[in-house]
Amino acid sequence: MVTTQDSAMDWSDPEYREAVIDLLGAMAYGELQAFERLANDGALAPDFYNRTAIAEMATAEFRHFKMLRDRLIEMGADPEVAMTPFVEPIDAFHASTRPADWLEGLVKAYVGDGIAMDFYRVVAEHLDPQTRDLINEVSADLGHSKFVVDAVQYCVAEDPRVAGRLALWGRRLMGEAVAQSQRVAAQRESLLDLVLGGIGADMAAITRMFADLTEAHTARMRSLGLEP
Amino acid sequence: MVTTQDSAMDWSDPEYREAVIDLLGAMAYGELQAFERLANDGALAPDFYNRTAIAEMATAEFRHFKMLRDRLIEMGADPEVAMTPFVEPIDAFHASTRPADWLEGLVKAYVGDGIAMDFYRVVAEHLDPQTRDLINEVSADLGHSKFVVDAVQYCVAEDPRVAGRLALWGRRLMGEAVAQSQRVAAQRESLLDLVLGGIGADMAAITRMFADLTEAHTARMRSLGLEP
Repeated sequence: MVTTQDSAMDWSDPEYREAVIDLLGAMAYGELQAFERLANDGALAPDFYNRTAIAEMATAEFRHFKMLRDRLIEMGADPEVAMTPFVEPIDAFHASTRPADWLEGLVKAYVGDGIAMDFYRVVAEHLDPQTRDLINEVSADLGHSKFVVDAVQYCVAEDPRVAGRLALWGRRLMGEAVAQSQRVAAQRESLLDLVLGGIGADMAAITRMFADLTEAHTARMRSLGLEP
Repeated sequence: MVTTQDSAMDWSDPEYREAVIDLLGAMAYGELQAFERLANDGALAPDFYNRTAIAEMATAEFRHFKMLRDRLIEMGADPEVAMTPFVEPIDAFHASTRPADWLEGLVKAYVGDGIAMDFYRVVAEHLDPQTRDLINEVSADLGHSKFVVDAVQYCVAEDPRVAGRLALWGRRLMGEAVAQSQRVAAQRESLLDLVLGGIGADMAAITRMFADLTEAHTARMRSLGLEP
């Protein structure tokens, strides 16, 4: 078990290195998938303004992917090998949350990526400074998603029935994200240890982490004008 | 009729300005569509190397789109208005040339974009320096497509039956490109005048332009190891 005190930042511990590679591999594949998915959502956009904005978000995800991939290479890891264990759960998440229309796509981009980034930031807090800085840079909101908030708020105000449907959609996204994370946790022991080691590995700390993630999700849904 | 001698580079001629806006609008929409299409093709890639390479090509197209859009704004034009007339023919081209698999997608990216870029470069030769430089920059091969040549050559060598299918595919791409260009030419008079004015507007010049474009297409097919 990797713990904060003795080895969480110790590169000579092969388990720590392996866990960081897992974490960066999961993030890298998530970004690559997000790039393709967002670029594809452009076809659903109601106008060129939105179509361009979502493309801008997509290219930001690809830039993040390259940063993570390059870091894996720097660490002497094979990015393809590092990403492979996460292909199936991340693809499964996307397959079970295919947006039916443009608005669902926007909410997914904003809420889904938000959940993932919050989680990565929490984990990063307890890692070595280099990994932490990289994860924080990748997780930083580049401001591209402001257009999502504006667009969803506008549509909800125009047609209040939309709000109910999108609120349910937000809950489904959260539920599917939790389900797939549990699958990953069950399969990637060293990654789980890294996460648990980082936050303290006691039940209170785990509960607190989930409470924090849920609270951030709630705030995001509210900022869209949706009941969490 | 815009002619090279008197007005092809004369911004005070509203017809010249209108035609350049048309040209940049067509290119901009083509790049935006190419971005979405290539990003989407990533899902068909056989491995991460190819998946990343096609994503890299896609983001280059989006960068080109932004250059063209920003130039339209600089010119005082509305990019959305400038692109709109070309949405239907460009979408129709893509709808009629949907790749059935990864290899067809690669050939389309390489051969289809090649035809378009050659055409734009020929037209650009006779335009004002600022427009010409922008078009040449956007049309420049960034080297991202070298991986296409390698990948197609490799597959053709592995399975020679693939070569016949892809050769037919290349011809269909050329045929559809010509068909949609004719549609645009019939609808956008000032753009047609710009093209014809630039190359001299006589039958010999038009024939020569088509011969040049066909020759470049032939060379591209050969470089892929395909019978043109």
